[in-house]
Amino acid sequence: MSSSFRALHHADLPLLLPNAWDVPSALGFVEAGFPAIGTTSFGVATSAGFPDGDGVTREANAVLAARLARLPVHLSVDIEDGYSDDPTEVAEYVDSLASLGVAGVNLEDSAAGHLVDPTVLAAKVAAVKERSPDVFVNARIDTYWFHEDDTVPATVARALAYVEAGADGVFVPGLTDPAAIREIAAAVPAPLNLLITPGLSLRELADLGVRRVSTGSLPYRAAIDAAVHVATAVRDGEAPPTATSYADAQARIRRYP
Amino acid sequence: MSSSFRALHHADLPLLLPNAWDVPSALGFVEAGFPAIGTTSFGVATSAGFPDGDGVTREANAVLAARLARLPVHLSVDIEDGYSDDPTEVAEYVDSLASLGVAGVNLEDSAAGHLVDPTVLAAKVAAVKERSPDVFVNARIDTYWFHEDDTVPATVARALAYVEAGADGVFVPGLTDPAAIREIAAAVPAPLNLLITPGLSLRELADLGVRRVSTGSLPYRAAIDAAVHVATAVRDGEAPPTATSYADAQARIRRYP
Repeated sequence: MSSSFRALHHADLPLLLPNAWDVPSALGFVEAGFPAIGTTSFGVATSAGFPDGDGVTREANAVLAARLARLPVHLSVDIEDGYSDDPTEVAEYVDSLASLGVAGVNLEDSAAGHLVDPTVLAAKVAAVKERSPDVFVNARIDTYWFHEDDTVPATVARALAYVEAGADGVFVPGLTDPAAIREIAAAVPAPLNLLITPGLSLRELADLGVRRVSTGSLPYRAAIDAAVHVATAVRDGEAPPTATSYADAQARIRRYP
Repeated sequence: MSSSFRALHHADLPLLLPNAWDVPSALGFVEAGFPAIGTTSFGVATSAGFPDGDGVTREANAVLAARLARLPVHLSVDIEDGYSDDPTEVAEYVDSLASLGVAGVNLEDSAAGHLVDPTVLAAKVAAVKERSPDVFVNARIDTYWFHEDDTVPATVARALAYVEAGADGVFVPGLTDPAAIREIAAAVPAPLNLLITPGLSLRELADLGVRRVSTGSLPYRAAIDAAVHVATAVRDGEAPPTATSYADAQARIRRYP
């Protein structure tokens, strides 16, 4: 599974990875033809009432991973910082996900809204790859996300440390400047993953050297907006928006393996 | 709490009850100004990979109720058939929800996609009202939903049996014919609840005698559609749809009490 997931990072266009938060959102992505899906830690955490990044969704992510790993696509799970500062504990957690059939994980170099020293994530990456060599480890670099050390040299230095430790790819959310994207992609010997970038198409991102594009929490945030819009439209006397029918939605969930 | 929830069923326009499936959807409805919210058994069940109506979400509904009862609005919880044929077990479950601060419940007279004898739901309603008299019990009548005995006389007979047993309101999903709505509303001495009905505004439903309108699973289904649309739009080279920003969505979840 993971070798073909890896191959998806070397196609003509970047691998577009839509991020699900539950079974129906994942089924929707699968039926729309996406060959791989991710999870969104934002959706998983906030669904349960917690802010994203607080590191409290270890169990909820494992439950979701177990559900989504049954689908006929590659699955990458966003596990924030691995929910521990102990590389061995992180490696055990990832191994438990791998045993469910998970193809990859995101592991980030921040906690509680701030960057941590790159040696912390490098140690986790090394421990995970030693324990679960087939798992695609995407090392998330939060320099641009939190506007701390958000420069090309600092980001490249972190990326090289993580690739040296065994990371299969690097993810730089918040990086949007085309020149910086091109420099970082050229300097890092592993696939570069970005979030959807307004104003840059998949083709343009490919030309800058990007190999994977995640939707992040945008689908989940759009989903919440759409739900609220249904109710306010009816309240305001507008026709209710249309959606997949109840019967079709029930039929879809009955196709869940 | 439940007395003022009851009063919302006697306003000029029907009480519009938007149905949430998680904390952010509920927060969105609260911040949009809705004074009461419901839950959607469809959203709760399918989120976890189960079809609606299979009666497997007893625990998931209780977890959701505990989360949403912390919000400053009235909360009505859709508990399918109460997850038991034993009225005492149903009453205990509802009492556990009431102790969380839940104002009302929906209890339905079908199981596994078919109507059950009305004496079954009547006994559950009576047991719940004896145990938790302050809980607003909305008796859901599935004659039109499953197209079984979907006539005015059969529906009214069920409604009267449930009101006699103590139901505070009746809910007839799938009922859309204006003449039938008017007849049923006139014949039943308790607030009539319908789903959103395309082609009938809240004003028109009020004029037919309807006192409460639920969105049902429409917001959740629209949410899933919106999420999939984000990903397919990007794949197809369109600009990604806009949504509440990550920062604003994080700020919202931090306002969760």
